Amino acid sequence: MSVDHKTGLQLRSLIKNSGELELSLVQIPIPEPGPDEVVVRVEASPINPSDLGLLVGAADMSTAKASGTKEAPVVTAKVPEAAMKAMAGRLDESMPVGNEGAGVVIKTGSSDAAKALMGKTVAMIGGAMYSQYRCLKVAECLPLPPGTTPAEGASCFVNPLTALGMTETMRRKGHKALVHTAAASNLGQMLNRICLKDGIGLVNIVRSPQQADILRKIGAKHICDSTAATFMDDLTDALVETGATLAFDAIGGGKLAGQILTGMEIAANKTAKVYSRYGSSVHKQVYIYGSLDPGPVILNRAFGMAWGVGGWLLFPFLQKIGPAEGAKLRQRVVDELKTTFASHYTQMVSLQEALQLNHIAVYGKRATGEKYLINPNKAG
Amino acid sequence: MSVDHKTGLQLRSLIKNSGELELSLVQIPIPEPGPDEVVVRVEASPINPSDLGLLVGAADMSTAKASGTKEAPVVTAKVPEAAMKAMAGRLDESMPVGNEGAGVVIKTGSSDAAKALMGKTVAMIGGAMYSQYRCLKVAECLPLPPGTTPAEGASCFVNPLTALGMTETMRRKGHKALVHTAAASNLGQMLNRICLKDGIGLVNIVRSPQQADILRKIGAKHICDSTAATFMDDLTDALVETGATLAFDAIGGGKLAGQILTGMEIAANKTAKVYSRYGSSVHKQVYIYGSLDPGPVILNRAFGMAWGVGGWLLFPFLQKIGPAEGAKLRQRVVDELKTTFASHYTQMVSLQEALQLNHIAVYGKRATGEKYLINPNKAG
Repeated sequence: MSVDHKTGLQLRSLIKNSGELELSLVQIPIPEPGPDEVVVRVEASPINPSDLGLLVGAADMSTAKASGTKEAPVVTAKVPEAAMKAMAGRLDESMPVGNEGAGVVIKTGSSDAAKALMGKTVAMIGGAMYSQYRCLKVAECLPLPPGTTPAEGASCFVNPLTALGMTETMRRKGHKALVHTAAASNLGQMLNRICLKDGIGLVNIVRSPQQADILRKIGAKHICDSTAATFMDDLTDALVETGATLAFDAIGGGKLAGQILTGMEIAANKTAKVYSRYGSSVHKQVYIYGSLDPGPVILNRAFGMAWGVGGWLLFPFLQKIGPAEGAKLRQRVVDELKTTFASHYTQMVSLQEALQLNHIAVYGKRATGEKYLINPNKAG
Repeated sequence: MSVDHKTGLQLRSLIKNSGELELSLVQIPIPEPGPDEVVVRVEASPINPSDLGLLVGAADMSTAKASGTKEAPVVTAKVPEAAMKAMAGRLDESMPVGNEGAGVVIKTGSSDAAKALMGKTVAMIGGAMYSQYRCLKVAECLPLPPGTTPAEGASCFVNPLTALGMTETMRRKGHKALVHTAAASNLGQMLNRICLKDGIGLVNIVRSPQQADILRKIGAKHICDSTAATFMDDLTDALVETGATLAFDAIGGGKLAGQILTGMEIAANKTAKVYSRYGSSVHKQVYIYGSLDPGPVILNRAFGMAWGVGGWLLFPFLQKIGPAEGAKLRQRVVDELKTTFASHYTQMVSLQEALQLNHIAVYGKRATGEKYLINPNKAG
């Protein structure tokens, strides 16, 4: 498969009606940009947990097999029968992947706004970023300051806006501090930098002493290791100190969301004056925004009646606050891209390398500290 | 123990630090009413699930033992060690019980508003209703229309306002139809009458064919039996027909809340046009307002990201809508007390009978169709 100037490679994910996942690269035409569009040579696009959801879907990657050629690798894996129902909406549709990325504008439409971007390095959002070339609207591009590389700008949207979405949600819903789980992640580190800068109390829940160390080194004040025997006491102490009544949970499955609510309830009752068998009247909320554990959420209700658990997603949040408020958040990301919102990657791979089983085994784990960047224009 | 004109009996619930529940009757002075207060001879007070929570707390009633005398019975039972933490707020405090009731005003304060109630039959809210005499503010009394008995007016608040709170919440949150569980209960039957009258779609979930029959007889349109093999299909069909995206769940523990969300998601996706791995963008909400199953809530997240589960309580809801809106709801209850809001009881017992183990075994089950009324002035 050769790369000419009229076509480019794009990574595709297909789940067949037969219950098979197929990942492959296809050669697609580079579209001619409309008046208000540009073509970007994509040079960096992260593999976020939200991308993995689309990339591998519900497939059991322990069954993954490699075929095809080095230039045009193909990976297949089985989707468990029980999970096929949830895949109904995407069956037999070959889907491009990659929420966000950055690259260089190589061709523009006729509008002044489009022409002004020629040669510029821009960050992008809008899907299909695991592609060598991406045609998109000017409004979907965020021009980066001179001296910013595509790798530095690859993660301008999902993690930074999610982290800012958390502190914004906290303010808008009348909470005064936050809890975050899987807190040593790239996103979690960003959230710590935001909270330290903005003076917001943040309780970090991690799942190992190593992850606690990562956060301690960047100055996190409240770190609770859920594998420690003293976890519930540590958590309750941190909740009393910060007054946090809102949590963002990346894990989802298991008992953690309920434990957080229980800790918040114990903290609230430390200052309660009257007994109510319905528990404290303080509203305690956990938003589940990820699914590192896809198992069931198990809520042991020891936290009264003033509580909520629900899903949280960045895009509905941005729709709710509207374009003007969203633009303010994006501007802050650009202004602090090399400090507050800096991302760190452990690997930069080509499209072909992204489909090697040894790499899939690493990034597929969704492990904290293992973050991949795809450069679709890196030689395979 | 004799009843004179200066004192009256009151039922008390005490959980001791030692892990023992003690139910008993105490003789307490009848207070002199303040200017804006009245003394009511309580003649009817229901045992609602919300009363049982305070009455027996976390005690294991299979360990219940009777002692004392016929006139002054005492019941004791063990509170399991694991449940004592949740009882911390009420330990060693002898607590009166009974959220609501009705009776006749026998003494009044000096204000005109108080005097106007002399001899009237009133419904009351405010706790401690399992008492022969109850002194309370005029504002806490709801005068009943002539010809209404205390038994007819005993349940004016908790069930009627909860049922109206559900349809009001539906309107205020932008949903168009409702799901209700344990739907053959007194409350569930009321909700059916409201929804039929107001033209609101209602999906009734019950746990036996007998309960389905109860609802069919009062004209319920959508009835799904969760013990039927076809439950998920029946539920989904009813959700498609009604468009319900809001549920009120009295059960709490187990998988039902998650099944309801899953059914709503399947219904929403039947009309969805674009695949999103985050599921439909329709917000699906379950409010848990009871705990017939005190076990953990288990959510198998097959319902996308636009969802919420949370606690719901009548009193915070009434606070939120404010006194003027609350008064409108109360007026509707009085206007339709013998029709929409009629309650049915299987037993009317004295305070002494309420503490007999054979009765506790029946009302303690919280079984649909077994509803008790206490008449504190019935001879023991």
